[in-house]
Amino acid sequence: MSIDVLQEKIRKTKNPSMVGLDPSPETVPPHLIQAAIAKNGHTLEALAEAYKTFCAQLLRAFKGIVPAIKVQSACFDALGAPGVAAMQRVLQQAQKLGYYVVLDSMRGDVGVIAALCAQSLFGQVQAGEETFQPYACDGVTLNGYLGGDSIAPFLPYCEKGKKNLFILVKTSNRTSTEVQDLLSGGRLVHTAMADLVNRWGAGMHGKCGYCQVAAVVGATYPNILKTLRSKYPGMFFLVPGYGAQGGTAKGVAGAFDRFGHGAVVSASRSIIAAWKKTETDGRDYVEQAIAAAEKMKKDLAKYTTVM
Amino acid sequence: MSIDVLQEKIRKTKNPSMVGLDPSPETVPPHLIQAAIAKNGHTLEALAEAYKTFCAQLLRAFKGIVPAIKVQSACFDALGAPGVAAMQRVLQQAQKLGYYVVLDSMRGDVGVIAALCAQSLFGQVQAGEETFQPYACDGVTLNGYLGGDSIAPFLPYCEKGKKNLFILVKTSNRTSTEVQDLLSGGRLVHTAMADLVNRWGAGMHGKCGYCQVAAVVGATYPNILKTLRSKYPGMFFLVPGYGAQGGTAKGVAGAFDRFGHGAVVSASRSIIAAWKKTETDGRDYVEQAIAAAEKMKKDLAKYTTVM
Repeated sequence: MSIDVLQEKIRKTKNPSMVGLDPSPETVPPHLIQAAIAKNGHTLEALAEAYKTFCAQLLRAFKGIVPAIKVQSACFDALGAPGVAAMQRVLQQAQKLGYYVVLDSMRGDVGVIAALCAQSLFGQVQAGEETFQPYACDGVTLNGYLGGDSIAPFLPYCEKGKKNLFILVKTSNRTSTEVQDLLSGGRLVHTAMADLVNRWGAGMHGKCGYCQVAAVVGATYPNILKTLRSKYPGMFFLVPGYGAQGGTAKGVAGAFDRFGHGAVVSASRSIIAAWKKTETDGRDYVEQAIAAAEKMKKDLAKYTTVM
Repeated sequence: MSIDVLQEKIRKTKNPSMVGLDPSPETVPPHLIQAAIAKNGHTLEALAEAYKTFCAQLLRAFKGIVPAIKVQSACFDALGAPGVAAMQRVLQQAQKLGYYVVLDSMRGDVGVIAALCAQSLFGQVQAGEETFQPYACDGVTLNGYLGGDSIAPFLPYCEKGKKNLFILVKTSNRTSTEVQDLLSGGRLVHTAMADLVNRWGAGMHGKCGYCQVAAVVGATYPNILKTLRSKYPGMFFLVPGYGAQGGTAKGVAGAFDRFGHGAVVSASRSIIAAWKKTETDGRDYVEQAIAAAEKMKKDLAKYTTVM
C-alpha cells in the first residue's frame, strides 16, 4: 500500500496515530504468559505464543479506531525463530484486518545484502519453483547512515507506489543529539539526512502530495518537527516518542500541514501497556488499550484537525 | 569471549581474517538447494536447510585456518522463522568449533528495545522458570546513528570482558561518503563517530591493549584506516570490504599496529562463493573456499606480519 492509502486511512478514522506493538515480558500481561507456559512449558515458544495472542487481541480491538500499526521487530527477534514466526503471523493478521503496517526494523545494510532485505520485505523470496512473502508489511524503518546504497534496492517498490520507507532522520531519544545534531557546514547532520531522504524519494509523490519515501522525526523535538515541516512540504513524517517517551500532542502539531495531513504519530507502551497503570494484573489489557488509543486520538485532536 | 580471545586466536592462526557467512540463492551451490528441496519441497524451510548445510560444511573446513566467523543476520532473516532457526544453529556450531563469532546485524535501537536486544544477544531471555540464549555470539555489529542510548545496554557485557561491540564508523560502500564524510567543525562525521566509540569504550581495554568496544572501518578506504589507526591506538577495527568489494591487502595494512595486531579483515563472497569462478557447478565449494581463505591469509601476510 502507498502513502496515499496511509493518508486515506488516517482521514477516514480522523486519527493520525499509529500503535506500536512492542510485546515483551514487561508489556504482555502475566496471565497471558502463564496460560502459554501451561500449554507450551517454560519455553521461548510459550513467550512467542503469548506475544501472538496479545497482539491478535489488540489488533481486533483497535479496528476502526487506529489506522496504522507498527510492529517492533526487535521484540520478536529477541526470542529467536519462534518469535519471528509469531511476528510473521502478527504482520499477516494486521494486513488482513486492513491496517497500514510498518515493520520497525531500523536496518541499514548495503549492496547485495540490502537487495536481499528489500526482496524479502517488499518483494518475494524464491524457493525452487515457489515464491514466498515472509513479511507482510507496507513500509519499513531504515537507518540511512550508510547512504544511498542501503536505500536503493527498496526504491523501485516505492516508485511503483506499492511500499514506503521511513528513514531515521531525527530520533526521539535523548542522545540522538550526539550524531544527528552535529553541525556540518550550514546544516545539522539530521538536516543533511532529511535532504538525502528528499533526494532519494524525488519524483515519487503520491496523489496526496506526500512522498513514498518518508522520514522518522521524534515527537520529543517539536522545533525540529516544525522546521522540517516547513522546509520539506512534501515529506511525510512518522513521529515516534509520543506518550511514554514524553512527546505531547501540542509538540507534534507542527508535524502536520494545515489540513492535518503529512504525519502519523506513533505510541507503543503508553497504549499497549496501559493496563500497567491499573490494579487489575492486566486482565483488562484490551479495554485499557482501547481507552488509551481513544484518549490519544482525542488528545491529538486538540491541536490537530484531520480534514 | 573478549577482544583478548579474538586477538589470541588471530595470533595462533597467524591470520587476521574473518570469514563472513552470507548464504543466499546466489552463494549456496545449486546441488545443495536441490537436495534440500528434494527433502523439504519448494519451501523456505528447504532454503534454510541448504543454508545450514552450506555453513556447517564451511565451518568444519575453515577450522585451524580462520580464527573468526561473521554471520550475516539479514541473509537468514530474509527467509523468516526457518532462516532464523538455521542461523541460531550456525552460530551455536561456530562457537562450539572454537571460532570467535560476530553476529552482523547492524541494528540500532533505543531504550527498552535496545535493552531487549542486548539481553537476547549477550545475556539470557527468561521464559517462566527457564532461561535461554537464543543467539550464540561473541560480538555484534551496531549502527550508532542513534547515539549512546542505543549502545548503553550492551556496555555492561563489554565491561566484564565477555562480549564485544563493532560499531559502524566508516562503512566500505561507495555512498558511505553521503553521511559519514560530512564535515562537522574540524571533524568528519565518521571521526565524530570514532570519538564516540572511543568514549563509549573508555576504560574497557583488554590485556592485549585493545578496547572491547571496537569500530567497523571499510577496507575500501585505506587512508581513513591509517588516520584512525594513528589517532586511536587502542581501538580495534573490524575491516570489511576486502575481496569482492575491492579492498586489498596493501590497503588494509594500515589498520594494524607494528605487531600486526589491532584489526581483523573480513571477506564473505570472495571466500564462500569462490566456487562460482570455477566450472564445477559448486560441487567443490568446500575446496574452493579453503583455497580462497588460504590465499587471503597469504595475501594479507605480504603486507602484515602477525607477531
